[in-house]
Amino acid sequence: MRGNIFGNLLTLTTFGESHGPAMGAVIDGCPAGIALDADDFSAQLFRRRPGQSSITTGRAEADEPQILSGVFDGETLGTPICVLVHNRDARSRDYDPNYYRAGHADRVWQEKYGHRDHRGGGRASGRETLCRVIGGVVAEKILPPEVSIVGFTRQIGQLRAEDVPADLTRQKVDAHETRCPDPAVADAISAELRACKEQGDSRGGIIELWIDGLPMGLGEPVFRKAKNLLPNAIMSVGAVVGCTLGDAAHDATMRGIDFHTGVSGAGADAGISPAANGIQGGITNGERIRLLAYFKPASTVGSMATSGRHDPCIVPRAVPVLESMVALVLADLYLNTALDRVGDLRS
Amino acid sequence: MRGNIFGNLLTLTTFGESHGPAMGAVIDGCPAGIALDADDFSAQLFRRRPGQSSITTGRAEADEPQILSGVFDGETLGTPICVLVHNRDARSRDYDPNYYRAGHADRVWQEKYGHRDHRGGGRASGRETLCRVIGGVVAEKILPPEVSIVGFTRQIGQLRAEDVPADLTRQKVDAHETRCPDPAVADAISAELRACKEQGDSRGGIIELWIDGLPMGLGEPVFRKAKNLLPNAIMSVGAVVGCTLGDAAHDATMRGIDFHTGVSGAGADAGISPAANGIQGGITNGERIRLLAYFKPASTVGSMATSGRHDPCIVPRAVPVLESMVALVLADLYLNTALDRVGDLRS
Amino acid sequence: MRGNIFGNLLTLTTFGESHGPAMGAVIDGCPAGIALDADDFSAQLFRRRPGQSSITTGRAEADEPQILSGVFDGETLGTPICVLVHNRDARSRDYDPNYYRAGHADRVWQEKYGHRDHRGGGRASGRETLCRVIGGVVAEKILPPEVSIVGFTRQIGQLRAEDVPADLTRQKVDAHETRCPDPAVADAISAELRACKEQGDSRGGIIELWIDGLPMGLGEPVFRKAKNLLPNAIMSVGAVVGCTLGDAAHDATMRGIDFHTGVSGAGADAGISPAANGIQGGITNGERIRLLAYFKPASTVGSMATSGRHDPCIVPRAVPVLESMVALVLADLYLNTALDRVGDLRS
Amino acid sequence: MRGNIFGNLLTLTTFGESHGPAMGAVIDGCPAGIALDADDFSAQLFRRRPGQSSITTGRAEADEPQILSGVFDGETLGTPICVLVHNRDARSRDYDPNYYRAGHADRVWQEKYGHRDHRGGGRASGRETLCRVIGGVVAEKILPPEVSIVGFTRQIGQLRAEDVPADLTRQKVDAHETRCPDPAVADAISAELRACKEQGDSRGGIIELWIDGLPMGLGEPVFRKAKNLLPNAIMSVGAVVGCTLGDAAHDATMRGIDFHTGVSGAGADAGISPAANGIQGGITNGERIRLLAYFKPASTVGSMATSGRHDPCIVPRAVPVLESMVALVLADLYLNTALDRVGDLRS
Repeated sequence: MRGNIFGNLLTLTTFGESHGPAMGAVIDGCPAGIALDADDFSAQLFRRRPGQSSITTGRAEADEPQILSGVFDGETLGTPICVLVHNRDARSRDYDPNYYRAGHADRVWQEKYGHRDHRGGGRASGRETLCRVIGGVVAEKILPPEVSIVGFTRQIGQLRAEDVPADLTRQKVDAHETRCPDPAVADAISAELRACKEQGDSRGGIIELWIDGLPMGLGEPVFRKAKNLLPNAIMSVGAVVGCTLGDAAHDATMRGIDFHTGVSGAGADAGISPAANGIQGGITNGERIRLLAYFKPASTVGSMATSGRHDPCIVPRAVPVLESMVALVLADLYLNTALDRVGDLRS
Repeated sequence: MRGNIFGNLLTLTTFGESHGPAMGAVIDGCPAGIALDADDFSAQLFRRRPGQSSITTGRAEADEPQILSGVFDGETLGTPICVLVHNRDARSRDYDPNYYRAGHADRVWQEKYGHRDHRGGGRASGRETLCRVIGGVVAEKILPPEVSIVGFTRQIGQLRAEDVPADLTRQKVDAHETRCPDPAVADAISAELRACKEQGDSRGGIIELWIDGLPMGLGEPVFRKAKNLLPNAIMSVGAVVGCTLGDAAHDATMRGIDFHTGVSGAGADAGISPAANGIQGGITNGERIRLLAYFKPASTVGSMATSGRHDPCIVPRAVPVLESMVALVLADLYLNTALDRVGDLRS
Repeated sequence: MRGNIFGNLLTLTTFGESHGPAMGAVIDGCPAGIALDADDFSAQLFRRRPGQSSITTGRAEADEPQILSGVFDGETLGTPICVLVHNRDARSRDYDPNYYRAGHADRVWQEKYGHRDHRGGGRASGRETLCRVIGGVVAEKILPPEVSIVGFTRQIGQLRAEDVPADLTRQKVDAHETRCPDPAVADAISAELRACKEQGDSRGGIIELWIDGLPMGLGEPVFRKAKNLLPNAIMSVGAVVGCTLGDAAHDATMRGIDFHTGVSGAGADAGISPAANGIQGGITNGERIRLLAYFKPASTVGSMATSGRHDPCIVPRAVPVLESMVALVLADLYLNTALDRVGDLRS
Repeated sequence: MRGNIFGNLLTLTTFGESHGPAMGAVIDGCPAGIALDADDFSAQLFRRRPGQSSITTGRAEADEPQILSGVFDGETLGTPICVLVHNRDARSRDYDPNYYRAGHADRVWQEKYGHRDHRGGGRASGRETLCRVIGGVVAEKILPPEVSIVGFTRQIGQLRAEDVPADLTRQKVDAHETRCPDPAVADAISAELRACKEQGDSRGGIIELWIDGLPMGLGEPVFRKAKNLLPNAIMSVGAVVGCTLGDAAHDATMRGIDFHTGVSGAGADAGISPAANGIQGGITNGERIRLLAYFKPASTVGSMATSGRHDPCIVPRAVPVLESMVALVLADLYLNTALDRVGDLRS
């Protein structure tokens, strides 16, 4: 299998260069009978869209999805679902083919393939992530309705949200353009990012993801654990340079007797560990999964950043992208649980 | 594909329960003509072996590997290589089937499959990692000889190595039982872990991995980047709860203009980024890859820990396991580069 | 992996329902640097196109391919190549959703998925095969230029070509609308198929494939031999009900001492078997591969056949489809040979 | 994925050279809770065993299976099942490394890998098929108990069974050493094969397989149809040179109006086609699947055949091997049906 197919029972194949005619996603393995139409993609695509606020790139793309296959009479067919988004605002003249931008894929791509689409990063552009969002929308339809996946901006540069409500929803996260749910910090972030735009500077940060409502049993040891497939998915996104289950850097410093507070024994709750962040032995335990994704500062800085169409910080727009990657992994593992026991198969 | 096969062009299939007759690994996709014999596995298996020092579990296993296939006259055949290690010191009487240990996989495994080998964790035991070491040894033979993968203990609990020599080798790392290359910190760690053993306490920590000598071009965008396959591999190991490319938590706080110091342009070195930790656009750039793996404290604490055969901290023994997972990923991606350009194929 | 992705190192993902907006193919794993443009698809698509002659369906489709990704400045990028063909002449009113046609997939599809696109067979339509032709065109570009894959009509119903020139090319095969290279038999077939069209009858037949110019060494024992991957590919096409390496039905009746005429020994030609039809131990031996594909009579007969837009015999139009499936398998196995020996990798 | 892993949701990884220490199989993806012990493998392994009758090779192998993992307290765990069979009667001195046997894999293997185990064919030996039988036994346990897979010798050389009882079972098939259920023909075959042994001659033939009791719905269009996965599996076995669904050579000669006798319409039986041999649109229709597998004459002829330990005809011993390959495909597709509809998943 090559590099543009993601997943196992539910596969997402993506295609498209940033300045080519279109970006597209093909989802194979979606069960039949799920209500789906083009509008279902709008909300998450809109959250990822460039130009959505004062702190994002000025590239103007409507990102209107077109379903080409796999859906009939408003329901999935069990056949591959292809969704296409045409590229409109592609200004190829902005790019010089012989210029390798530091921090970007330009140079290694050229060395690896000997031929590249240099316009806006080609396939290595962040624009590729809209195909992931398309896949994520389908994946969320496969998951049981009680599952919720909510990401938010925990930190940008050195500004960190401390006061985060316990009952976050995507709607509440979207109340601020930064997707930071701590209002005071959010305003400070906006100010900092606007300054970055002017100065050709950039920032990284942290997205935190809360996954609730999962059943026990998702994960396929020993190599396809929830514990490694989720970071695998998240770290395949452009600027992500780290992923941890909970605050791993802190947990690594703790005493075992303080960390492990679960009850051992034979009772109904026995063996569930509060510190496990929702995953034990690589398998979901029915509790919240908490993930942190670390972003390096956006790569375009200096004169290129002030002149061009670039985000000073990718974190706010990456929230729906990471949610989508999480959904793809969980839907795949959820489908997999149908195969756990022969009794289930024959019932 | 199910959960016990790892990799793509080079696959590792592992099998075996902790207290069953044997653990085993089947490697498919190793090219023909590589010198290999049973002794080649000894060094890394010995580094992972229980009972190797005063700070590890007392389970006594010789872990002698037996090659069953894939090698003839001292060279690989291009056929699947099966290596077996028999389990000897399996004391099943120590375990109660109706007892779910907090922090372990007992409960979720029971719920998922409805039937489990409760003895010593069965398939969820850390003993499974010896099969990964077997795979890693083969993978290192596939990689060009100039590639080096060295892991070491950066931190245990709150004790952190600050003074690490620049020219680390596995031999130097092994100079101390903790695999911490800062002698003063290493002695403090030993003392702390011996105290943990007495008190039924445990510790987590950080393993740092340095990967040198790689060519440019390893990684298959957009879903099989070096950047996500390495964390995927590392986080599939038991107690690892986070993996970052370099010190991501720190990088996320930096200003872009400070972080991105590489040279843009058309020159020979243009486009290579010193801050990239060896990976740009998901593809190796020929520089050192630096990875951090975060471990939670070992799960067995309290009376179970003092009575049984458990490590107070898994970090030192996990060093060769993580090196092996890294080798498996890199060998797979290295094989993949043979397919990048049609010109290479026809030359 | 699910049912709409074909291949391993070179993957073809297809999508599209017969009466949906479009059919499409995504090829992942094509190396960079191969000259490719939309015109390259025309010849084989034209050979598969409906309405090309008096003996084919009247559905009018231009089948104009549009490259959406993976090609830049006339060369492949090493990224996924998506090619789209829009459906134009889709007359949905011809079909009744509650009507299950015998011999078609209607009933089993309904039972399996509980929901189907009943219009013209939906995904089960022969129209899906145009995506395979797209994949085949790319695959042929990957194969060394000396490889040739030529299919022809060996038999329709009881009319069998006996006098077949030894130097067949696709051009020569196309000299007759039946793609039968024995002129006398070809004319008889045309007459028979025109009669079938009038009478609502149909015919099956045999396509024979000659594959020349292959190097020794294609095939990955023990489960991915050339010997089984080729039939796998061919039998995945709609009406094909059998595939044999050479004339297997005849070979099965022979005495071993008559069949096995190759030379055993240590010489330059030793061990090559003339009766092997190009494959020994599942691996190509450098000689011609000869394959036979058996087609059942086309499924639409009776009043549906006379009223509708159906081929009385699918065999002539299936020739480029089978050639394409063969090319996909061989290109995949050809890529695979780059991984056989470690010496090759390091040279 | 490389060449020694078979299947998708249920995978069989095999390893072992004919004259190496052992042959082995690892089955991943078997659900938990299936009763299984070593004795379950005996019946089918015995049917495949060398030396079982006067018409088979004299190599003496007990072929005693040893379960190393995946089973606990007599039930499968949902973890990989490894079963090992040691090689005992390996007479390496019989083979000359510089001698390439015509009709065997010797030469192409040497050219492909540059290094081979020349002893008895190494990995290319028919001995490898015992691992397939092990996989098949597990696969049959996964299938619903009403499924039956029975293969028999339809033809050896020019001797063809015409009078075959409708109620065949494996036991009835085994009533004769030839596994031919037509007694008169069977005796003639025995006589012919004994003569072959004396004369250094060999024979091919046809195995016919009847698969009954399947539910509707097995098969994953468009590339993983039952129609192509079954031939793929069967043709991966050594001497098989063709596979057809029913008697394809005959069906290809029929008139469509005679062949297609099923009822079209909206009724309960509508759309099921008697001539489909159990598969429509690539999906099982609930009727019997009938498959024919064509074998070329065994490759070892002449002086090598009279001196050595070789079967004059592989067909009788191949019956359980083909049944096993069929079982592996069907179990995989059966597991797959659990994923067809989202309603099934949530029930």
